[in-house]
Amino acid sequence: GALGGLGLALGLWRRQTALAAAREAGGEEQEQEQEQEQDQQDGEPRVRFMAPPVSGLRELRRRRRELRSRMELLIMETQAEVCRALAALDPGASFAVDTWERKEGGGGISCVLQDGEVFEKAGVNVSVVSGLLSEEAARQMRSRGKALKAKDGKLPFCAMGVSSVIHPKNPHVPTMHFNYRYFEIEEADGTKKWWFGGGTDLTPTYLNEEDAIHFHKTLKEACDKHDLKLYPKYKKWCDDYFYIKHRGERRGIGGIFFDDLDSPSKEEVFQFVKSCAKAVVPCYIPIVKKHRHDSFTPEEKLWQQLRRGRYVEFNLVYDRGTKFGLLTPGSRIESILMSLPLTARWEYMHTPPESSKEAEILEVLRNPKDWVH
Amino acid sequence: GALGGLGLALGLWRRQTALAAAREAGGEEQEQEQEQEQDQQDGEPRVRFMAPPVSGLRELRRRRRELRSRMELLIMETQAEVCRALAALDPGASFAVDTWERKEGGGGISCVLQDGEVFEKAGVNVSVVSGLLSEEAARQMRSRGKALKAKDGKLPFCAMGVSSVIHPKNPHVPTMHFNYRYFEIEEADGTKKWWFGGGTDLTPTYLNEEDAIHFHKTLKEACDKHDLKLYPKYKKWCDDYFYIKHRGERRGIGGIFFDDLDSPSKEEVFQFVKSCAKAVVPCYIPIVKKHRHDSFTPEEKLWQQLRRGRYVEFNLVYDRGTKFGLLTPGSRIESILMSLPLTARWEYMHTPPESSKEAEILEVLRNPKDWVH
Repeated sequence: GALGGLGLALGLWRRQTALAAAREAGGEEQEQEQEQEQDQQDGEPRVRFMAPPVSGLRELRRRRRELRSRMELLIMETQAEVCRALAALDPGASFAVDTWERKEGGGGISCVLQDGEVFEKAGVNVSVVSGLLSEEAARQMRSRGKALKAKDGKLPFCAMGVSSVIHPKNPHVPTMHFNYRYFEIEEADGTKKWWFGGGTDLTPTYLNEEDAIHFHKTLKEACDKHDLKLYPKYKKWCDDYFYIKHRGERRGIGGIFFDDLDSPSKEEVFQFVKSCAKAVVPCYIPIVKKHRHDSFTPEEKLWQQLRRGRYVEFNLVYDRGTKFGLLTPGSRIESILMSLPLTARWEYMHTPPESSKEAEILEVLRNPKDWVH
Repeated sequence: GALGGLGLALGLWRRQTALAAAREAGGEEQEQEQEQEQDQQDGEPRVRFMAPPVSGLRELRRRRRELRSRMELLIMETQAEVCRALAALDPGASFAVDTWERKEGGGGISCVLQDGEVFEKAGVNVSVVSGLLSEEAARQMRSRGKALKAKDGKLPFCAMGVSSVIHPKNPHVPTMHFNYRYFEIEEADGTKKWWFGGGTDLTPTYLNEEDAIHFHKTLKEACDKHDLKLYPKYKKWCDDYFYIKHRGERRGIGGIFFDDLDSPSKEEVFQFVKSCAKAVVPCYIPIVKKHRHDSFTPEEKLWQQLRRGRYVEFNLVYDRGTKFGLLTPGSRIESILMSLPLTARWEYMHTPPESSKEAEILEVLRNPKDWVH
């Protein structure tokens, strides 16, 4: 989703099972525990990661004051928190953990739960990559398309993010997507440009106003802690970004979305992104809990499948991160396309009857509503 | 498929049932019969069209010597022949016929069979549109991207074509796509540029060498009547065009594909295109007949669904005609996206076992073979 696929876009990789990853981590396993205890003493929450961080715990510890390291810990924590919360709701299923490496530097950790009782396909990716970007690629990374001055046409960069799409089985449980990312680029004169991007958005098959309000309210509270202007601005940005132009519909009922965020200060933006990332579990998990055992009809399942088709259309035709990833040679394609649903459907000329539940959600997708005042 | 969606891209339209279309045709119905008898006397095959032609039979008759009219009759005949041949193999199902009009001139006829016994989704579209194109849009229409000189930035154009995708239910019956199209554009100095494009290609779930040979041999014979160089050239163009770059795979086992064809002469290219269009039924229908009652396992159906996912990826990410259509405001989106399968599937990290039937077709999709020598 969004530019989250970006980090996953480049390089060689290899598959590891969770077991193999744990085995390979070897000595670091123990170290991780010690360091997490240390974190706890420092007031950070204790979280066990899904795999050893790309940059290594020792290195992250050594450079703990740098924002890069703090962001890498945040995305690792978010991945672990979300995976754990999802797995707890789908006891029979478990996340497969793939770690992959990028030849030029960095790598990633993909966690995927497929064909569970509750979740049809749930993926949570972390990637931390660095190296040299062409001016063209650097421009594509920024939504405002600002020019960056390169030395010999190449810009040293670092990109990291956590990115996730959760497709549940039950049509009364909405699909959720989130992505939080950080970029650094060094220009020819040594100036470092940095920015954050991200967002969380919901794609229900049927409208449930209570759920919509809970979701938006939780995100608004996360934003409001930092600046009351943020939620309205990023809510609108989300409605504008997730627009399937050829259908005249949004992908879902929105949430928040932002990109190129580089003010007021690195620290303040990081704290804002952290609040957003911490809001993922509370904005979504209660909705899953509430509806995962709802009964549904074959007709409701069919409508869900048609909406999944629209999800595919958005991701393949419009999503900037997916397109960037697909067009980059040597992409880790499985991580980029993890966002696609397990199954989807396209019927010629399908139009729901007026005043149906299907027409109700379409109305909201065509004319986004304000859910929180 | 390809630039076939193009003709369907623009304008307003209205739905008509086959019945309504026939009723509306009214007086023309009788005229059509008379004229078709006339055609037969002139050595043209007798075909009843799926709906009255966009330009009207009277007008086509009046301008019968013009290539535009002959091409419109050819695409109408092709639509009818293919629909009839498909319907004969799927007796319980029938084609819904939608006619649509374009405000600025022209319109189209979409024939769709959905959820039959043999065919999951089969669509055969005709479109005949004309009007003014921007220089940018005109450039996008040509694969070689040649500049065309416009008067006041607008170029009068005429585009027509027949375009079809057939998705069968049985995984042992391949998906088939074809598209034949004709363009005319008038430059600022009054010069008329014209060109043809088209192709027919096959997308099997499993490799059947006998079918592959029959399909390619039939296309080769159609090409060979005109020039022995055509088949090898257009076979390669097809393999190159239907390439899913991010997967390193072709969409299917190919066939023929060509674009921007404007030599040696209008008449000769038309005769070649006609031979190709006439080859659609004989290259595909025998394969459907042979396999439509084949038994299949749930695993084979699942592999078909995964391959359908790849079909969606090609059409939404790479196909020039689909992209052109989606990006054109006021498109008839249902006709453009008719090419998508009824259902598709994406599994994370699905890899068929070595030496399996699934690995066998993947090998051919990665390294295209020569089927006819």
